[in-house]
Amino acid sequence: MAEYTFFFNPMSRAQIARWALHEAHADYQPVFVDWDNKPQALLDANPLGKLPTVIHHHGGHDHAVSEAAAVCHYLAEMSAPELLPRQEEKADYFRWLFFAAGPLEAAVTAKAFGFDSGDDRKKQITVGWGSYDKVVDALESWFAGRDYVCGSRFTMADVYVGSHVDWGMQFGTIPARDSLSAYAERVRQREAYQAGKAIDGALIAEMQAAQPA
Amino acid sequence: MAEYTFFFNPMSRAQIARWALHEAHADYQPVFVDWDNKPQALLDANPLGKLPTVIHHHGGHDHAVSEAAAVCHYLAEMSAPELLPRQEEKADYFRWLFFAAGPLEAAVTAKAFGFDSGDDRKKQITVGWGSYDKVVDALESWFAGRDYVCGSRFTMADVYVGSHVDWGMQFGTIPARDSLSAYAERVRQREAYQAGKAIDGALIAEMQAAQPA
Repeated sequence: MAEYTFFFNPMSRAQIARWALHEAHADYQPVFVDWDNKPQALLDANPLGKLPTVIHHHGGHDHAVSEAAAVCHYLAEMSAPELLPRQEEKADYFRWLFFAAGPLEAAVTAKAFGFDSGDDRKKQITVGWGSYDKVVDALESWFAGRDYVCGSRFTMADVYVGSHVDWGMQFGTIPARDSLSAYAERVRQREAYQAGKAIDGALIAEMQAAQPA
Repeated sequence: MAEYTFFFNPMSRAQIARWALHEAHADYQPVFVDWDNKPQALLDANPLGKLPTVIHHHGGHDHAVSEAAAVCHYLAEMSAPELLPRQEEKADYFRWLFFAAGPLEAAVTAKAFGFDSGDDRKKQITVGWGSYDKVVDALESWFAGRDYVCGSRFTMADVYVGSHVDWGMQFGTIPARDSLSAYAERVRQREAYQAGKAIDGALIAEMQAAQPA
């Protein structure tokens, strides 16, 4: 049995976890998930049936992890300690991992569905993301001064934060400001990024070819 | 100088960080933040000016941490290793920390502002939280089977997840189902919770008394 079972659909946030699995050189068994027919093993591990969900078979136990950011960090903890933050990098690492999982994700979604707080100051204080513009400005200014989340060194936080920025540049959900385009370009050079995307890209092409015309 | 500088307003998510600071028995200097007049030191550390923001003065450097969940975890890493997860607790710890920072926070906000996905299946897949009902069900079923995030042992994840549930029970933003009320009741017994809330409660009372009638 592989060390990790990886429940995925190539058209989902599971792409983030696949990239992380490749960064960690993890031994994993992929299990394709049809949205309309989720496997019972997935639902047992995660009643929400969300993707990605990863099960770590370790020490005679099965440990289920979901939430893409948690999957990334967990994989670093278990299988890629060189991608964990050093003591002096921890503040930046956790701050931006949670910033991307919380305010950034929420701001992009809010904007897409038309409920961003905009200039409404009271709403800005209530919602966790402030406003879409403020979130994008914060992200831009962070990467204006450094190559990666923790400065000059790539860490697992860049798989998660980098996925958000990469996705945002591709789909226009985050504006392609200089520091953000450059950051996306930088993370796309990772061998593990390219290996993971090649697999998901081929699967998406297959799925599209199989669709009735 | 204290080890940590803690920018806060008692009427904010900074309450979560204060509880965490007390769990960690941290030596901290609180700095009250007026929403209308944010101190430059806060804006320098975090251009979004969000609360809580904590600065760790360590090894001759200042490390800024924001995002309440990141602050909690960082404090455990630096000052309360006994509240970090053990190897076999890490999957649950990080999964639920990110679940609360992402889907739970987003679902509660979405519901409050009237943009939850409800039964719209396409929207459920697009948004990171699925739907408010699914999020609450997942949380309920997790705590039906265990006392704390990681099972029988309190960890720093309970400060963050527990704050969401405690807040949700108080303001009715999360339904008071049995396992959730019981969990909230359990975390409220923590000495550090009570110490932190006593300080913030007294400050809120002062602020309210000072308001023009």
